[in-house]
Amino acid sequence: MPLIRIDVIRGRTQSQLRAIADAVHEVLVETFATPPRDRYQIISQHESGEMILLDTGLGFARSTHGVVVIQVTEQGRTRDQKEALYSALAARLADRGLVAPTDLVVSITQNTRDDWSFGLGKAQFLTGDL
Amino acid sequence: MPLIRIDVIRGRTQSQLRAIADAVHEVLVETFATPPRDRYQIISQHESGEMILLDTGLGFARSTHGVVVIQVTEQGRTRDQKEALYSALAARLADRGLVAPTDLVVSITQNTRDDWSFGLGKAQFLTGDL
Amino acid sequence: MPLIRIDVIRGRTQSQLRAIADAVHEVLVETFATPPRDRYQIISQHESGEMILLDTGLGFARSTHGVVVIQVTEQGRTRDQKEALYSALAARLADRGLVAPTDLVVSITQNTRDDWSFGLGKAQFLTGDL
Repeated sequence: MPLIRIDVIRGRTQSQLRAIADAVHEVLVETFATPPRDRYQIISQHESGEMILLDTGLGFARSTHGVVVIQVTEQGRTRDQKEALYSALAARLADRGLVAPTDLVVSITQNTRDDWSFGLGKAQFLTGDL
Repeated sequence: MPLIRIDVIRGRTQSQLRAIADAVHEVLVETFATPPRDRYQIISQHESGEMILLDTGLGFARSTHGVVVIQVTEQGRTRDQKEALYSALAARLADRGLVAPTDLVVSITQNTRDDWSFGLGKAQFLTGDL
Repeated sequence: MPLIRIDVIRGRTQSQLRAIADAVHEVLVETFATPPRDRYQIISQHESGEMILLDTGLGFARSTHGVVVIQVTEQGRTRDQKEALYSALAARLADRGLVAPTDLVVSITQNTRDDWSFGLGKAQFLTGDL
């Protein structure tokens, strides 16, 4: 927890995809107080045309092949933590030349402590293991 | 916002997939009061056998290759808006010969205004940009 | 309802994927009181490196190719039902040699009765059809 889905257009190398995933995880550790080994990421690559993202009228253009959607399922973070996440994600991914700030969309969904099993058939947030 | 995931079985042309995505967006604009440029769609194509959808006992048969699941993440729509969405989606996709009404499944999940960043590292619903 | 996403690393046969999906559905019927024909499953296969799952510090190792993430969207189940789901999923998938208990991650997200259309453009939980 959190569970992160990273959707991209096919064309990046495995190494670039890993670099994106690494940057996302670093930022989660820094802004969401996620433990370093609390990493759950799923990358999905799409053909061109399978990701259609406009700008909600905000007035910037997105690239056709560089867009990245990060969908986060988590529980308990505050509004301040979320704003810190968005800001740091955009900065980190841009600083490393991985994703332009205009190509990055983030959406978060909440669930509860009951809603996670990290293995062994247990709900570790309920059993005291976490 | 909303973020739309459209899952289909491989076999449609890119043009047919685009037509489905266009119809879904039109209906969102009409029933969810989504601004025309508020478009965030991700299409995922699956092999036959990777989408297993029965009928919840409602008494209709689904096709094996035509099924479409539309998963919507949004915040703030009413029950009436959701019912209008379901109805218009089924009608529009059927009228255009894209998806049979018996092949369409829609699931919505809510989040909050804090949960979106559309680019530039900002939470545009919180900053006043939207 | 529930809608189930099953994400795996490519390499299993179609028959093995089907066996996983079947086991997941059986367990939902048993622990979530899901009707047998209430089956909505989407399998996504990923390349090696596209699923990065650590252990949240729980002290076990995951395999590189056997990891499975099951993401459930549902409404109304209790904490007890969720714990029963986690436990039975891990046991069933292990008993059948399909997924090691250390390779299984489950995440649940809630929505409401308004949030489902199973076909024909209707919200069947609201119309009295279900």
